Amino acid sequence: MAKKSAQVQSVSAALRVNPDSFDLAEVDPAGKPVGPTSKSDAADELGVIGSELDALQEALYAEGAGGGRRRVLLVLQGMDTSGKGGTIAHVAGLVNPQGLRIASFKKPTRAELRHDFLWRIRRQVPPPGHLGVFDRSHYEDVLVARVDQLVPETEWRRRYGQINEFEAALAEEGVRLVKCFLHISPDAQRERLIARLEDPTKRWKYNPHDLEVRAGFSEYQAAYQDALVKCSTAVAPWFVVPADRKWYRNWAVARLLLEAMKDVAPVYPEPTYDPVAELARLRDADPLR
Amino acid sequence: MAKKSAQVQSVSAALRVNPDSFDLAEVDPAGKPVGPTSKSDAADELGVIGSELDALQEALYAEGAGGGRRRVLLVLQGMDTSGKGGTIAHVAGLVNPQGLRIASFKKPTRAELRHDFLWRIRRQVPPPGHLGVFDRSHYEDVLVARVDQLVPETEWRRRYGQINEFEAALAEEGVRLVKCFLHISPDAQRERLIARLEDPTKRWKYNPHDLEVRAGFSEYQAAYQDALVKCSTAVAPWFVVPADRKWYRNWAVARLLLEAMKDVAPVYPEPTYDPVAELARLRDADPLR
Repeated sequence: MAKKSAQVQSVSAALRVNPDSFDLAEVDPAGKPVGPTSKSDAADELGVIGSELDALQEALYAEGAGGGRRRVLLVLQGMDTSGKGGTIAHVAGLVNPQGLRIASFKKPTRAELRHDFLWRIRRQVPPPGHLGVFDRSHYEDVLVARVDQLVPETEWRRRYGQINEFEAALAEEGVRLVKCFLHISPDAQRERLIARLEDPTKRWKYNPHDLEVRAGFSEYQAAYQDALVKCSTAVAPWFVVPADRKWYRNWAVARLLLEAMKDVAPVYPEPTYDPVAELARLRDADPLR
Repeated sequence: MAKKSAQVQSVSAALRVNPDSFDLAEVDPAGKPVGPTSKSDAADELGVIGSELDALQEALYAEGAGGGRRRVLLVLQGMDTSGKGGTIAHVAGLVNPQGLRIASFKKPTRAELRHDFLWRIRRQVPPPGHLGVFDRSHYEDVLVARVDQLVPETEWRRRYGQINEFEAALAEEGVRLVKCFLHISPDAQRERLIARLEDPTKRWKYNPHDLEVRAGFSEYQAAYQDALVKCSTAVAPWFVVPADRKWYRNWAVARLLLEAMKDVAPVYPEPTYDPVAELARLRDADPLR
């Protein structure tokens, strides 16, 4: 009974950051606050979600081809090994790649640093009809920029407001934002870093600098707490996804995306020609028949 | 016995265009010259191919992240409804979208027309480590450009050599080309155009101009014959994929891609750090333990 009602509950409502009361320290990275409680149930649900997502994304793509300007942008943030890449493989991988635009934001280049921090982000906003995925984002500019003191405090403090204005402008332009913080525990990160080092096919994902970043885990949590609270707005809310369990993380992000897509409710465009007349041309006047 | 040997046969060898003897008119668009003979066998094989492709693409991506410059570029050409989009969904959709770069080439814009015909193509060559997919390509410049007389004959005739030089340069740069012509019959095209017109969720894919292009079917076949023969080179061969059956088309393109990937044989890069020392740091000197 409890399980059943959990499955129809809005995952968006359950995982959304309420700026008035949110405390990241109270969120269990291994929690399952809503939805399936076992890996196999989650896998079953993910299959169904995938079909629905794929169908909705095709409609969104068609809407865009017909002149619509709406699009969806999934923003993924999280500590190293939190599963940004895995989420892209397992969630973005559910839909037709033709309609996807994936952008990764690494340490800014010198060219990028000559511009304001949102410059490189704007260039990667997905075109109408597409599902964009940001692997890291403009939030790095209030995370690593703050923890590593890359800019003065007055500057990164100013950025929260700039981000909110930027995201409000995106929403105005028809961009539906789905911002997910993949929340892992220090222990889970440790296990995953060890796994990367022990597996020759995973060593390329590891960088010794990852341990310096790991040493600042609690500073990053404080920086995330502020970013999540200050930038969870009505048009661009943050969702916190417990990510110690990969299956739960994939299921939750897929559901959040599905709920956003259903809310966008893309519609196939009306044809700009007369389908009946075209059918008649093909049936009665086809020179190749 | 015959079936078994067909499955281990190189699909690349079976579908490759031999410039000395190739005649497009002799290729059956509904044929199954190699591989599975039923839809269900093809579906089973596609699942296996998908896993292999995904694993090889991850290694290619890792190789690229480690400084390797190799990449793979799948070029899809074919008449309207031949299944370029469907192939992207069902074949490119088998791998992690993070390592994919899909580019569609439509009618050139005014800006593109101010440059040589290869300018817009060069800009979309996939970066190292990636699998690129071209939905139409520079071959349009010897197809529609010829049939619709967009440029003088001397100009499109010159382009075959320019294309071969361009592709040879790409191969030098580490780009493995897999060029597939999706070969459909006029009857199959007619059925698919009717299906598009009858289904409200498919009407957006149809354009009345498609029937003008269809009327030139035989001119296009002649233009394809020349392009396939003149530009099937050692480093960038053409493959003709019978495409009246969607399941056969998907299987064949996936196999061609897999054979190319296996031949590229990407390797995971050696770490630039000492994994043993890093493991020791995590195990013995982890401040978060």
